[in-house]
Amino acid sequence: MSLDTGPAGARRRSAIPGPRLHSDRAPAGAETWEVREVGLHPAVRADLESVFALANGRLGVRGVLEEGGASSNPSSYLDGCYEEQELTYPEQGYGFPKQNQVLIGVPDGTRFALFVDGRPIDPSAGDTTSWASSPSSQASSASGSRHERVLDLRAGTLHRSSHWTAPSGATVRLRSTRLVSFTRPAVLAIRYEVAAADRPVNVRLHSELRANPALPDRDTDDPRAPTVLERPLLAERHLADGHGGVLAHRTRRSRQRVVAAVTHLLDEPETPDGSRPEVTVDTGPDLVRVAVDVRLAPGQRLGVTKLVGYAMSERRPFDELITDARAMLTEAAGRGWAGLLAEQRDCLDGFWDDADVAVDGDPQLQQAVRFALFHLFQASVRAGRRPVPAKGLTGNGYDGHTMWDAETFVLPVLSYLRPDAAAAALRWRHATLDQARRRATELRLAGAAFPWRTIDGRECSGYWPAGTAALHVNADIAAAVLRHVAITGDYALLDEIGLELLVETARLWNRVGHFDEAGDFHLHGVTGPDEYTALGNDNLFTNVMARQNLLGAVAAARRLPERARQLGVDASELDAWQAAAEAMHLPYDAVRRVHQQCAGFTALREWDFAGTGDDEYPLLLHYPYLELYRRQVVKQADVVLAMQHCGDLFTPEQKARNFDYYHRRTVGDSSLSASAHAILAAELGHLELGYAHLADSALQDLHEMPRQSRDGLHIAALAGVWLALVGGFGGLREQGDEPAFAPRLPAALTRLEFSLRWRGRRLRVTVTRDHATYLLRDHADGDTLRLHHYGTALDLRPGTPRRLPLPELPDPGPEPAAPPGRAPRRRTTGKAVTPVGTVPAGSADGR
Amino acid sequence: MSLDTGPAGARRRSAIPGPRLHSDRAPAGAETWEVREVGLHPAVRADLESVFALANGRLGVRGVLEEGGASSNPSSYLDGCYEEQELTYPEQGYGFPKQNQVLIGVPDGTRFALFVDGRPIDPSAGDTTSWASSPSSQASSASGSRHERVLDLRAGTLHRSSHWTAPSGATVRLRSTRLVSFTRPAVLAIRYEVAAADRPVNVRLHSELRANPALPDRDTDDPRAPTVLERPLLAERHLADGHGGVLAHRTRRSRQRVVAAVTHLLDEPETPDGSRPEVTVDTGPDLVRVAVDVRLAPGQRLGVTKLVGYAMSERRPFDELITDARAMLTEAAGRGWAGLLAEQRDCLDGFWDDADVAVDGDPQLQQAVRFALFHLFQASVRAGRRPVPAKGLTGNGYDGHTMWDAETFVLPVLSYLRPDAAAAALRWRHATLDQARRRATELRLAGAAFPWRTIDGRECSGYWPAGTAALHVNADIAAAVLRHVAITGDYALLDEIGLELLVETARLWNRVGHFDEAGDFHLHGVTGPDEYTALGNDNLFTNVMARQNLLGAVAAARRLPERARQLGVDASELDAWQAAAEAMHLPYDAVRRVHQQCAGFTALREWDFAGTGDDEYPLLLHYPYLELYRRQVVKQADVVLAMQHCGDLFTPEQKARNFDYYHRRTVGDSSLSASAHAILAAELGHLELGYAHLADSALQDLHEMPRQSRDGLHIAALAGVWLALVGGFGGLREQGDEPAFAPRLPAALTRLEFSLRWRGRRLRVTVTRDHATYLLRDHADGDTLRLHHYGTALDLRPGTPRRLPLPELPDPGPEPAAPPGRAPRRRTTGKAVTPVGTVPAGSADGR
Repeated sequence: MSLDTGPAGARRRSAIPGPRLHSDRAPAGAETWEVREVGLHPAVRADLESVFALANGRLGVRGVLEEGGASSNPSSYLDGCYEEQELTYPEQGYGFPKQNQVLIGVPDGTRFALFVDGRPIDPSAGDTTSWASSPSSQASSASGSRHERVLDLRAGTLHRSSHWTAPSGATVRLRSTRLVSFTRPAVLAIRYEVAAADRPVNVRLHSELRANPALPDRDTDDPRAPTVLERPLLAERHLADGHGGVLAHRTRRSRQRVVAAVTHLLDEPETPDGSRPEVTVDTGPDLVRVAVDVRLAPGQRLGVTKLVGYAMSERRPFDELITDARAMLTEAAGRGWAGLLAEQRDCLDGFWDDADVAVDGDPQLQQAVRFALFHLFQASVRAGRRPVPAKGLTGNGYDGHTMWDAETFVLPVLSYLRPDAAAAALRWRHATLDQARRRATELRLAGAAFPWRTIDGRECSGYWPAGTAALHVNADIAAAVLRHVAITGDYALLDEIGLELLVETARLWNRVGHFDEAGDFHLHGVTGPDEYTALGNDNLFTNVMARQNLLGAVAAARRLPERARQLGVDASELDAWQAAAEAMHLPYDAVRRVHQQCAGFTALREWDFAGTGDDEYPLLLHYPYLELYRRQVVKQADVVLAMQHCGDLFTPEQKARNFDYYHRRTVGDSSLSASAHAILAAELGHLELGYAHLADSALQDLHEMPRQSRDGLHIAALAGVWLALVGGFGGLREQGDEPAFAPRLPAALTRLEFSLRWRGRRLRVTVTRDHATYLLRDHADGDTLRLHHYGTALDLRPGTPRRLPLPELPDPGPEPAAPPGRAPRRRTTGKAVTPVGTVPAGSADGR
Repeated sequence: MSLDTGPAGARRRSAIPGPRLHSDRAPAGAETWEVREVGLHPAVRADLESVFALANGRLGVRGVLEEGGASSNPSSYLDGCYEEQELTYPEQGYGFPKQNQVLIGVPDGTRFALFVDGRPIDPSAGDTTSWASSPSSQASSASGSRHERVLDLRAGTLHRSSHWTAPSGATVRLRSTRLVSFTRPAVLAIRYEVAAADRPVNVRLHSELRANPALPDRDTDDPRAPTVLERPLLAERHLADGHGGVLAHRTRRSRQRVVAAVTHLLDEPETPDGSRPEVTVDTGPDLVRVAVDVRLAPGQRLGVTKLVGYAMSERRPFDELITDARAMLTEAAGRGWAGLLAEQRDCLDGFWDDADVAVDGDPQLQQAVRFALFHLFQASVRAGRRPVPAKGLTGNGYDGHTMWDAETFVLPVLSYLRPDAAAAALRWRHATLDQARRRATELRLAGAAFPWRTIDGRECSGYWPAGTAALHVNADIAAAVLRHVAITGDYALLDEIGLELLVETARLWNRVGHFDEAGDFHLHGVTGPDEYTALGNDNLFTNVMARQNLLGAVAAARRLPERARQLGVDASELDAWQAAAEAMHLPYDAVRRVHQQCAGFTALREWDFAGTGDDEYPLLLHYPYLELYRRQVVKQADVVLAMQHCGDLFTPEQKARNFDYYHRRTVGDSSLSASAHAILAAELGHLELGYAHLADSALQDLHEMPRQSRDGLHIAALAGVWLALVGGFGGLREQGDEPAFAPRLPAALTRLEFSLRWRGRRLRVTVTRDHATYLLRDHADGDTLRLHHYGTALDLRPGTPRRLPLPELPDPGPEPAAPPGRAPRRRTTGKAVTPVGTVPAGSADGR
């Protein structure tokens, strides 16, 4: 069964049995607010654990089944809870990082073991016969499966319901609902219910908190696979405590202390004839186990609310951490399950009011957009001054490292939707500045050299040509500062941390680059976003971003002269930055009339796409870097990303030619390409192509199973969905102190509505086929907000919507081609939404 | 104490206490045939073990002291005896080699433990007081030291003599002489004598054969340091056997079987009153120990001849190997010590008759040249169809791997001096062709891709930008074939193995390269010899060598059409190679009028030499590749090597400008630079500069202590000494089927005389200040040999010397500069040769 058996031109994929995350009908309104699994899907179990992960930016819990066996990844994570691991190289080199940091699993509170009439039930064993033999199911309305899970995007919960029939013939109904609290630091709550269906049963329920669970070995050559450390936590204490207990652990090398506390609230027996449950608590170094024994009459139910709280520190003593974790439980218990559900929904209501994007005409995309925003919220709501990892807390892919993705994809969205979270993330970067300065010194550079991948601020990149050499991460951080200040007007933050980040990164570029005899400024020997080319000279993206970095530092220093003086910036330094920026070389091929991804790129040999099999993607798993680096094959948007981020440096004609040239050579082996391609395609009027790229970005974590999502979701790509919608089809650009829009819709969409904050003001934009309506949602007595609609300034009064027509777009000319088999999948137009795994041939539009 | 405190411009080095390997006087005639250590030098102990290593290409034994403690490196090696070791990468990549091969120590037969009146003596403990307290020494005529070692370059032995005074006041005299037989497969013989000096002593002598000795940990970030495996050998059998025994071991992963056998020949007691020695033998899994107890009257001597023989195989059973090893001992014992000495000297006499180079006017250099030739002989005499490792068998540096050095530096010398050894080495490469074909397939290339470093033919390079990417090794192998056939006229070898090597490497280049729109052929994204630049486009050296490879393959295939057809070569393939070669792009900077090391090289930023401290060399230990790669700083000859190997492609003016340009930017952090620089400097008339480079190459292993030589000698650099003398000051070039000379001498030399074979004929060339004399040493009735002297053809009759005047050389212009502090040391002019470590200030000539 192929995901897409469409004709050439559409992306070809290998046959994968997919789960059914959608109903056969187009999702109705309510169904666009949920992700539903009907039946069990062992082949994509790990991917679904990521899809169904709950998190709040501080605590992440994967969507494991409560009674399941060992999972492929740890189940629970605390942001920043890592262990160190020695990096060993076959050949050592100066400045190679010596230590990796690996996100580790913290004690897992999701697990229950259920025994019915003495027999354990294990859904992960694939014993679907037993599950399907149940006569009926309240949860499954669609098909014969007796298992269903629902990620509720408005409730902020993962709900699950199953029937199970024991060999004795007795059937039990299971229901569980879990949440990771958005309003509490690190609390997992699970409501677990088991009910006897048709005859009396003896039920034994073990609820566990377990550290250091065994994980299966993974033998893989994939450089993207996570490191798994065996038994990363050393037990320090274990305590029983009422209906729960406490585990205290530390890591060996990073010396982090982790405390997990668990307690259980048991329902009163439902009927007078129900036997009272017996509760016992066992603890061990790595385990708290609460056992509940009860006999249930038909219709009777055992209900348990399990609360797990975490505290972590490098410095604070265990006693304090234990007190903290217990206090979390006491507070949560005080609210009760219903209270926790209510505050979770309240919090989400606020987010959706600020952030929801309506996409009328494509319910499947609508659902994917909300899924993306939900996980973006989950990755950031309580992250505080900690990094946003590339996978959020949905998995341990990339070892839990944060990368340039955070500043380049995630922060722009947060600056518009949740500016406090964006500011906190920038403060975290600033907190690592001393480490970045030391790294710059080690690298014989100047200013600050931020790490390509890290948890605590130190470089963890083990392959320097695609790590340390990607110096653009520094300009990406500077760009996040500049963008955030432009969007929010938060000059206090600029003064507090922003200027210093700008200054230290500007110093780096000034040291890295040099003027040639003709007076041009060059940045040689660095790697840009496209990792299929490395160590090039004058990477276009790096150069335009470094230029922006230098100019931004000059402007910010002039705005905050006192703070600049404190940072040792003088006039000659500003002059140097200004001169370097103005002289920055942007490599251009005058014959082909396109910019070069790096000097000489367009003279490289072309990739033999015709000779490359469908099964040879991603190329990095089938070709050596030796072949990739020396050819014109692009893993991910690089020149296109440069045009997205520094569009003013390119004429429309250049953009069109560049986009066409690089689109033809980009294989999209990274999830980060699609949003930039969508945005540029939309800007250039290739609306259907942009729409296809948008959908690729939006649907990949829901459709690209198995394995693409097994180690966590592509958080930056999910953020890219918002960027593609708002920057692409909304045409949003930051134009100095004011937002500018140039909306346009692809054929499938009848309406696009999105919200954002600009300098503290809440703006809603509604785009239809012919018009755009702008509404300032503040109270009616506020100031006007100036925005731009297709180049025309518009002063918007609070509370008064303005409806403006969309101009005719010029003919964009022929649509850019893609490498054979690597074009984004075409959307069916709106109606025929089908379950994953059963896309009929012909649903691709056949480009 | 500095080796050289001369003025700026001369190479500055850090202060090092050096050993005295020369007498205070200029070495007289006999002293140029030996290397002498007077006194103990613990600080450079490991370096001296390399200098004093004995080897025959099959077996290598480092110059460890017999009674010394644990050495830093294994002491004994068999060529090709390695263990596999997993290569682990922080980030895996497609095609990264998964296995390293590490040269391991075989059972060490050098060790004796000596007890005098019950007390062990240990020279390595630095107990020099005891050693120096001896009243007199027959061995040391120079100074107060009582320890002396002499490497005898005519005898092929390492001789050592010491006095030692026990706490009891008794003094013993020790003498040992060892040899690794040049005429037997793998036999070490040690003559060990201990004599009572002034009063009776009880002597207990343990003679050991020991496997898996403990080695000290080395904590280093130096990528050049060797891998040391703990206890690499698994014991299989141990047998006692008369006055010796046998150890049989195998390696864990590479499944090699190693057998070492030892026996001892005891002298008859010297005087009737001497007590008869008592002999006992102990064996264990890793040890054969023969204990000899004797009481010596004053003047009496215990004399033991220890014989150690080795056999090794992957396939043959232990029984056969044990039989072989014992047979070696039986045969050697039959010759007796005097016989072994005699056959060793006989063999060397033949070599020196063929190979000696006389350098009159600089005795220190004369000594170094003979030292170099001696070790080159030792690295190859019995190597057979096995690789010549970069360190020979003098140490385990580079893990015992063979690299491009062998074909580029060692084989050219062997083709002239020992063509059978060169042919055997080429046959070894050919034997690995299947592995190279598989590697080419893995790399998605064609033909054969030979490994950058290997023992058995599989790629072991762990840092691909300076390993796998250095594809020029394939052209280097082809060049060795072409050169060997040109020198020897051995077309049978071309038919047997040479053509296939040429064809498969030509196929590689044809696949790697491509034609651009203008019709130029390019080789992109490869690394040349200079490892301070990597992954460049159109590396000049690679391109000229690939061009030569392609043309050589075409010519050889046309010469041997039948064999070519067997190899699947057809006319269209030959046309493609010819076209690629003719269109090969050679990057040239038309403004600076120099060739570019790779495309764009001359536009890179200059290195800040003024800001680089003397202690920051080699740069690779103090700067990241990130900085090195993107600047115009050259580790080792690259363009210069291209001009050496393919001089016809450059005009004299281009050579002069290129040499000047790159000499200014070459820091010489590799030992492989000096010979190429010497040759080009001589060709361009910069005779004193060439002489300085020659001396740098010749003296480094004798002078650059500590640590430069600790893991073995720089065999390729030692071969470069011959190349620099004969190619540089002899001006030898291969001109089609005929040799061409253009001799010229630096001021210090009064005479240079060298010999070589050309197509089986023995030619001797004697160069004085004004004349060159050519002598064909064959019997007088042979054919004439045509050679060229400064462009003039000369038909030489056997036995009839021809004396021709040297022309005036044109003014070469100003001497090329070097980076500050990186110029080669200037030679003092002939007379004032001084011991290492005590070069007086002012002995440098002050450029």
